[in-house]
Amino acid sequence: MNRIQQLFGIQHPIIQAGMIWCSGWELASAVSNAGGLGIIGAGSMYPEVLRDQIQKCQAATNRPFAVNVPLLYPSIEEHMASIVELKVPIVFTSAGNPKAWTQHLKSHGIKVVHVVSSVKFGLKAQAAGVDAVVAEGFEAGGHNGREETTTMCLVPAVSEALDVPVIAAGGIGGSRSILAAFALGAEGVQIGSRFVATHESSAHQAFKERVIAAKEGDTALRLKPLTPVRLLDNPFAQQVAAAEANGSDLEALSELLGRGRAKRGMFEGDLEEGELEIGQVSGQIDAIVPAAQVVEELVQGYHALTHGMTEPRFRW
Amino acid sequence: MNRIQQLFGIQHPIIQAGMIWCSGWELASAVSNAGGLGIIGAGSMYPEVLRDQIQKCQAATNRPFAVNVPLLYPSIEEHMASIVELKVPIVFTSAGNPKAWTQHLKSHGIKVVHVVSSVKFGLKAQAAGVDAVVAEGFEAGGHNGREETTTMCLVPAVSEALDVPVIAAGGIGGSRSILAAFALGAEGVQIGSRFVATHESSAHQAFKERVIAAKEGDTALRLKPLTPVRLLDNPFAQQVAAAEANGSDLEALSELLGRGRAKRGMFEGDLEEGELEIGQVSGQIDAIVPAAQVVEELVQGYHALTHGMTEPRFRW
Repeated sequence: MNRIQQLFGIQHPIIQAGMIWCSGWELASAVSNAGGLGIIGAGSMYPEVLRDQIQKCQAATNRPFAVNVPLLYPSIEEHMASIVELKVPIVFTSAGNPKAWTQHLKSHGIKVVHVVSSVKFGLKAQAAGVDAVVAEGFEAGGHNGREETTTMCLVPAVSEALDVPVIAAGGIGGSRSILAAFALGAEGVQIGSRFVATHESSAHQAFKERVIAAKEGDTALRLKPLTPVRLLDNPFAQQVAAAEANGSDLEALSELLGRGRAKRGMFEGDLEEGELEIGQVSGQIDAIVPAAQVVEELVQGYHALTHGMTEPRFRW
Repeated sequence: MNRIQQLFGIQHPIIQAGMIWCSGWELASAVSNAGGLGIIGAGSMYPEVLRDQIQKCQAATNRPFAVNVPLLYPSIEEHMASIVELKVPIVFTSAGNPKAWTQHLKSHGIKVVHVVSSVKFGLKAQAAGVDAVVAEGFEAGGHNGREETTTMCLVPAVSEALDVPVIAAGGIGGSRSILAAFALGAEGVQIGSRFVATHESSAHQAFKERVIAAKEGDTALRLKPLTPVRLLDNPFAQQVAAAEANGSDLEALSELLGRGRAKRGMFEGDLEEGELEIGQVSGQIDAIVPAAQVVEELVQGYHALTHGMTEPRFRW
């Protein structure tokens, strides 16, 4: 048992990322029931939707699960009130100042984890009292740090600088990259893209199929002047790329993005005009399977790899 | 012994990257004498300089060393003629079509390795008959792939797709990242930035000191419309960033770059107007030491880590 297993009370230190439009109670409970940690992504949910999702998740699993709350969410007070009232055991926060909610949640016995993209933000999160951090690299899908530090560079630096345990995220979709993350100093991994392509993910079927069709080089970090976000290539992403190449300013990019693009792409399946957030590792994902199968394959593959470390390849 | 150790006849599968202005015979022979593979970076050398460097390297070590030749080098015929005549045992090629020289070099008994940034180019290199590939991720210093695939995503994909052994590069500066690279499927690592900050590196002392002062987020991939290159932040890099944000075209960027910027920065120590090529991992490098000490620390750290894999952190 490492510190992440102990902290969450889970069998495998494999955490399914809380993702807007993709991770509702079906996915979160499936991952938790498989021995990992499932996370409901609250960033795309109205307060009443989140309440309903938490209750459905509790009905579907007796095991620990978490809710991910972006700290810039407009109705965050309502989200946090539901989380406390419904006794959600673990909260992952992201995109904002961890000082704002950490002590409040901890005073209700809730474990708090904050997502960071640099040592600097990692130290701030630790000072705010979080129980662990997710160190998320440049290759991750969705919103992303401005420094563009990759998982390979970020995880050893954060692990070295912090005392709290580190969960690695970004570029992790198979057992090789899980072992790599542990080698870098992590005690858990957070996996997003691979869980998008599962039966239980609430992503639109067309988006799931686009994810497994993705090839290397099909994603890029876009909208950097606004908030950097890793997008899958499609006509909308190409419009953004063209606007960026022309030196469009923040306002023009914001107007181009408009509202509701992420829902339109990932939840409603508009592959042309929607925003499709996914990680670089999508290029290595080739099947839509049950979430429990993903967990099982990752765990078995990891154990095979660690037992195989007596091979000459490792033992030079 | 793994395939990379066997291929090159070296003790440790640690390869010092061939880097313009930084890796002459002093560095290459020091790394080879320490049991790794040293590489002379021929991309910044006139033909007569390379001949001299090869001969000095041969006088300084009895062990295998290599020369790195960018395939777009203007006087490449002269470089390759010297390499064959002086019986250099191993050549690393980069930045060009591996078909052009691989068979010629191999017909003279020379081992050939090509640097790639994608599975697609890896398969092309393998088809051209190379003995191994370097899979170099987005976090690496200097010139870089357009797909921006990170080491974490690139190495498992290339290792899976190719039969020839894979050397991982990009973001590797410590023993944790060496073990991570092996976990991802590599059988060797190529390390650049960490060897810039050594006594034997031919980089200007001011550049070495700037490298060890670098913090996280101090590098960025610039000049993408031209050829993507990872640069350390300085007034020149800021001029480039401003030009890019304004939507400058290829011609304007090319004019801004001008000629001789890399020499000016890395070899002559002009930290204001010079081009300073370095990897993201520079943020983790904090001392200028002998190259043999780097190799020794990496090897000992790696073995301590692999022996420590019975720890609970790994054994979940």
